[in-house]
Parts: sequence; structure tokens; C-alpha cells
Amino acid sequence: MIRIGIYGYGNLGRGCEAAIKKNPDMELVAVFTRRNPSDLVIATPTAKVVSAKDVLDYKDKIDVMVIAGGSATDLPLMTPELVKNFNVIDSFDTHANVPSHYKNVDEAAKKSNHIGFISCGWDPGMFSLNRAIMQAILPDGKDYTFWGKGVSQGHSDAIRRIEGVIDARQYTIPVKEALDRVRSGENPTLTTRQKHTRECFVVAKDPKDYARIEKEIKEMPNYFSDYDTTVHFITLEELKKNHNGIPHGGFVIRSGKTSDDINHVIEYSLKLDSNPEFTGSVIIAYARAVYRMSKRNESGCRTVFDVAPKDIQTVSYEELLAHTL
Amino acid sequence: MIRIGIYGYGNLGRGCEAAIKKNPDMELVAVFTRRNPSDLVIATPTAKVVSAKDVLDYKDKIDVMVIAGGSATDLPLMTPELVKNFNVIDSFDTHANVPSHYKNVDEAAKKSNHIGFISCGWDPGMFSLNRAIMQAILPDGKDYTFWGKGVSQGHSDAIRRIEGVIDARQYTIPVKEALDRVRSGENPTLTTRQKHTRECFVVAKDPKDYARIEKEIKEMPNYFSDYDTTVHFITLEELKKNHNGIPHGGFVIRSGKTSDDINHVIEYSLKLDSNPEFTGSVIIAYARAVYRMSKRNESGCRTVFDVAPKDIQTVSYEELLAHTL
Repeated sequence: MIRIGIYGYGNLGRGCEAAIKKNPDMELVAVFTRRNPSDLVIATPTAKVVSAKDVLDYKDKIDVMVIAGGSATDLPLMTPELVKNFNVIDSFDTHANVPSHYKNVDEAAKKSNHIGFISCGWDPGMFSLNRAIMQAILPDGKDYTFWGKGVSQGHSDAIRRIEGVIDARQYTIPVKEALDRVRSGENPTLTTRQKHTRECFVVAKDPKDYARIEKEIKEMPNYFSDYDTTVHFITLEELKKNHNGIPHGGFVIRSGKTSDDINHVIEYSLKLDSNPEFTGSVIIAYARAVYRMSKRNESGCRTVFDVAPKDIQTVSYEELLAHTL
Repeated sequence: MIRIGIYGYGNLGRGCEAAIKKNPDMELVAVFTRRNPSDLVIATPTAKVVSAKDVLDYKDKIDVMVIAGGSATDLPLMTPELVKNFNVIDSFDTHANVPSHYKNVDEAAKKSNHIGFISCGWDPGMFSLNRAIMQAILPDGKDYTFWGKGVSQGHSDAIRRIEGVIDARQYTIPVKEALDRVRSGENPTLTTRQKHTRECFVVAKDPKDYARIEKEIKEMPNYFSDYDTTVHFITLEELKKNHNGIPHGGFVIRSGKTSDDINHVIEYSLKLDSNPEFTGSVIIAYARAVYRMSKRNESGCRTVFDVAPKDIQTVSYEELLAHTL
């Protein structure tokens, strides 16, 4: 059994916990929390709930620690710190800061002889893997990533910070016409606005503020001003009833030529009922690779680009040859 | 530069030649043919055309030999033989015989300290890779492979062997209703007939034979009797004008649950203008991994399951982190 620890018990931590139950070679040993452990009830009766302060007590009891923290402030500190004592895996998703996160984790991991796996999940993660393979097998081409339809946590949070807003949910929606143009092999140049629209469901204290809130959303730089945005005001009950899930998904498409008039289109897509559960499921599969790399005495930072597909499998190589190849 | 040899110059050999031109780190050194070399004109003026009998003269001049032969009779002999003197890669696609082919190539490759990469292309190849990764990241689910719309060479050949047939082209077509049911997450049980239909374009000597030929096609065991098959009789001119290409493609879809009511659908699809050119393009990307494995002094048989995505890249790991992750 591969002994897993989960550090952090928000949506992603619970998603990882659910995934462990689907993997017969995995065992959840403990959940580590910054809250009071006695206040936390987890879904795995056999696992312990432990204060994050006591994590080092588990140094020899955990094979891979999943760090289920946020990319903005948690992971840049937690991953290089925890890799000093554990093999770790995180879902760091601030694309622009990946090189520096990689460097920090790599240094600490090599020094302590551990594996520090970063940026696992679906984007970064499965989408990155597909972009990389598509680029290699179709070098004369262009790739496109579309997200959605799905809930963007960051954009929902941005709306919640507007004065007078009680709660909000923002959906990112790929534009079908843009998808179809990419699929046709046209290789179009697409603006931000042409690729995605944004749809917002907002609960506000006072209907008198609707017009101001809508204007503030639509003009918010980076988040909304470059998009065609729709705003719906709804009640808290409607929000809870109709927008309770965390669906997401998206598309990676590459179109390219192998000779003058010969074009090919490769498409990878995800339709996810729950973003954190799927992300957790990918992380747990790659935790298996972390475990195996560590058993081979490898150390340092790793990403999906480093993993041979056989290293995330529960079935034997012989079974893969016989049934999956 | 990675020095490539191509052993065999049919459609696949020419597809690999086209792919080499798209990869700046690759150089075609020679094409090896069982025909008279002086009768063969290839598309790369800088490359030699050499008799297959003289292949050992190139033992130290070629880094990776692409074996562009057929799976039925060529590759089971050629790959274990050529790997005694070269790093090789083939597209062996008789799924049922993969384990024994693997064993033969592995033994010979280990003995001679070479890499023997087998079953590269899209199915087996990219589809296998996707099936394996999907199974690992969504263990509680089911996957489906659909092929087409595309030309099946084997089925076209089977029609050509019928008496009175001059030429023929057979298209495999996935059934849209079956695709939609799979995409919905229903995880249906589908019969052969429910998944694909077969459409045949046939040129026959004598219209009096049409009824007999159509009956022979539709009742042919293994090839057609389990499918809904449509037969069109056309002229040789129409065949050459409208059915000259070798398009293909297909879909790998996995649908699975991470908890009770939470379902996810992963889909990988290909739409290819030319089956041999795309297959060649995949082979040439993986020839890069063969080269790198050999430089690391690895030996033995390899498949797509053994390759970390970074090993097929022309760009550096740092660039992958910065732009592709």
C-alpha cells in the first residue's frame, strides 16, 4: 500500500480523499489541518486528523504527501518546506510562476533526497501533457486551449469582493464558433474576446446596486474587461439550488500540417462534474509515480513531462501490452 | 542531428520522410529498399537509396532506423533482425501479437545493446497512450475506442480479392448515436454493429456481377458480416477522383466516476487527412526518444508506455515549464 497524507482539507483535499478510495493500492494515513483537528470530521474513518504543527511526527509514516493548498500564498511556501521531509505533490497553477516554483522545490528536494512533484491536475497537468505531446508529433502547427463550461473560482471571488455582493458564481464558456474554426484546421488568430465569454450569477444585498455592480464587474481589468460578460442577479436560494456544483472542463486542440495540403487535427477534451474531484483523481494517479520514483532513489522536482505512462498504472506492463496497447 | 534511416518505401516510409522535413534536429541518411535502388526516386535529394541487402554498411551511420514494413509478415522478422545492429522503431499493429513481438524484440535488443521501439503510431500509439493515462486517472470507469471516418487498408484489400473486383475503397464510420451515448457518461454496452458502419466503393469488371459481389462483401466473416455495410459501385475514374486520399481518425473516450454522483468524460480524437503521414509524424517524434534512450545506454524493447513526454521534445525542459505547462 502507498501511504498518502493530505495536507489541507478544502475542496481539493476532499477530492484527493475521494480518489484514494478508487485506488486499491493507496491508503489515506492522515489529513493535516491548520484548524483545530478535533473540529474536523473527514470521510475516511481509518485516517487520522492531525494538526499541521505535528506533521513531522509522520515523517516515516507517509510515502507521498499531497499538498492541497492555494497557489497564491500557500504552495510557494509549503511545497519547498514540506519536501525537506516528505515526497510531495502539489497542484501549483500560477503558470507565470512555475519556473521559480520549480527551482525552489528542486533545490530543497535534491538536498533532502525527495521527489517534489508540482503543477499536477488538469491545467496545468493533463492539458500540459497533451500540449507537449501534440507539439512534438505535429511540429508544424498551432495549438489552442479553451476552458469551460465551468466555474472559475478566481473570477467568482473577484465578484464577491465588490461592495454589496453577498455571493456569486462565474462561468467561463468557450465560444462555439471559435472552437469550430480551430477544429476546421483554419488556424485562426483569436482574441481573448473571441475565445471565451463570461457569465455571472450574482446575489446582491440591494436591487438599487444592480446597475453599479454590473458595471463594476464588466469593467474589471484582467478579469472581465476583455470579455463579453453577462450578469444575472438571482436570489441566494437560487444560487444554492442551481449553482452548487463545481463543474469544469475544456479543450486542447492542435491543428497542423505534415506536408503541403495535408492537415491533421488532434483534440483532447474534458467534461468534469467536479473540478476538485477530477484534479484530486489526477493527483492521486501521479502520486503513484512519485512513490515509484522515490523507490528508485530519484530526487528533485518533477512535472507531468517527466512521467512515463507506465509509472502511473496499477496494472502490470504485461497487462498494458496485452490489453491497452 | 539525429541520423534516420527508413527501411521500406511504401506509404508509411514516405510519411516518415515527410515528417523528417518538419523536424529540424533530424536528417534522413538513407532509404533501404528491397527493390532495385536505381528504380526508386525519393523526395529527399540529400539522402541515398540503398539496397536492403547492404543495410549493414550503414551500421555506424544511422542513429535510428524506422522499419516501415507490414505487420503481417515483414515486422515480426525485420524488427528482431535489424535491432541486432540498429536502434529501430516500428508500427507493429497486430494487437493480439504484441506480447510475442515485444518478447522477440526485447531479447535481441538487450543482447545487442540497442533500443527496439514497437507499435508506434496512433493506434497502437497515441490511442494506447491515452487509454493508459485515462485508465489511471479515472480508475472507476470504462473506455471506448471508435475509428473513422477513414479508409481501412485491410478491408479494402479484402474486397479487392473478390473475383471480378478491379479496385475498392472501404471507409470505417463511427456511429454518431453510439458516440453520443458514450459522451453522455451512460457507459453503454455496445455491440460491434452498434459502434461502426462500413461503406464500400467498388469498381467491378461487369455489372452482371454487382449482386454477387455485394453479397460476398456483406457476408464476409470477420471483415463485414458483423457490421451494417453499404456497397456503392462506381467507375475507376470516380474512385481515382473522389477516393484517392487516405484519411482516417477516431476517438478514445473514457467516462468514469470519482464519487457517487460525480461523473467525468475524457475524450481524445484525431481527424487525419493522411493516415500514413500522421503515423510517420508520430514515429519520427518517438525516434527522438529512441535516440535519447540509446544515448543514456538503455537497451531493450520500448513502447509509448515507457516514454516521458520530455523525451520527444525539440524544446528544452525550461521552455516546456515556461510555455507549455
